[in-house]
Amino acid sequence: MRLMLHSAVMTSEIRAAMQATNSLFNSEIFGKGNMDAFDNIYTREARILPPGAPMISGGAAIKSFWADFIKATSATAATLETVEAMVDGDGVVEIGKATVTMQAPGSDATQLQVKYVVYWREEDGRWKWHVDIWNLNA
Amino acid sequence: MRLMLHSAVMTSEIRAAMQATNSLFNSEIFGKGNMDAFDNIYTREARILPPGAPMISGGAAIKSFWADFIKATSATAATLETVEAMVDGDGVVEIGKATVTMQAPGSDATQLQVKYVVYWREEDGRWKWHVDIWNLNA
Repeated sequence: MRLMLHSAVMTSEIRAAMQATNSLFNSEIFGKGNMDAFDNIYTREARILPPGAPMISGGAAIKSFWADFIKATSATAATLETVEAMVDGDGVVEIGKATVTMQAPGSDATQLQVKYVVYWREEDGRWKWHVDIWNLNA
Repeated sequence: MRLMLHSAVMTSEIRAAMQATNSLFNSEIFGKGNMDAFDNIYTREARILPPGAPMISGGAAIKSFWADFIKATSATAATLETVEAMVDGDGVVEIGKATVTMQAPGSDATQLQVKYVVYWREEDGRWKWHVDIWNLNA
């Protein structure tokens, strides 16, 4: 039996907080290479499930993964778009699309179309990614 | 502002219901090719996010996807293992692992290691997959 009385609904505050976090991923991580910005993107106990690798847990390992990814792919931008966001209890389940732009020096830019599911939690007054899984459309 | 008072916790009943649903995926879908069993696995408004394809919405399209997948891969089994299940409000976010066995006639069996995130909801008294995304470990 679950007993519950709650009114968890998507508010403009939550939506704005999510957009702010999603924007950091492009502006700070891909734009400036500022890996410390991940402290404001992922929860301390976050897990990521990247294609082609086992699950990775915790902030330090997640920073390493993305630093390696950016270096290996020459990624220069990653823009995120929320397709649907479902508030449930203390969290939000987001379905989204991402476009990752890659441009090695002297080469033309190429783009990857990605889709993802992120389970969001609030931590230290910010909305952050607690579980993050994605894959490619093609 | 969110106002909430709820006591959503993982119970043995929810866990058993989830295991029953996950078992159907192997026994009915892969074991017997009974695509109608998907009515007891996915919610009516479910979405799947498969690697290598855009998002697919709704029961009929999801059945077609899996029927095509089984035919194309000669998959004979798909066993699921829950790594973590987080109850939140009216749903559960599950991180899991899957092993998919494929065996074309006259060939040796091969296995794929898969990881996934499923967002569960209760519908018609059953716990079902509402959002389902996965990718390969290698």
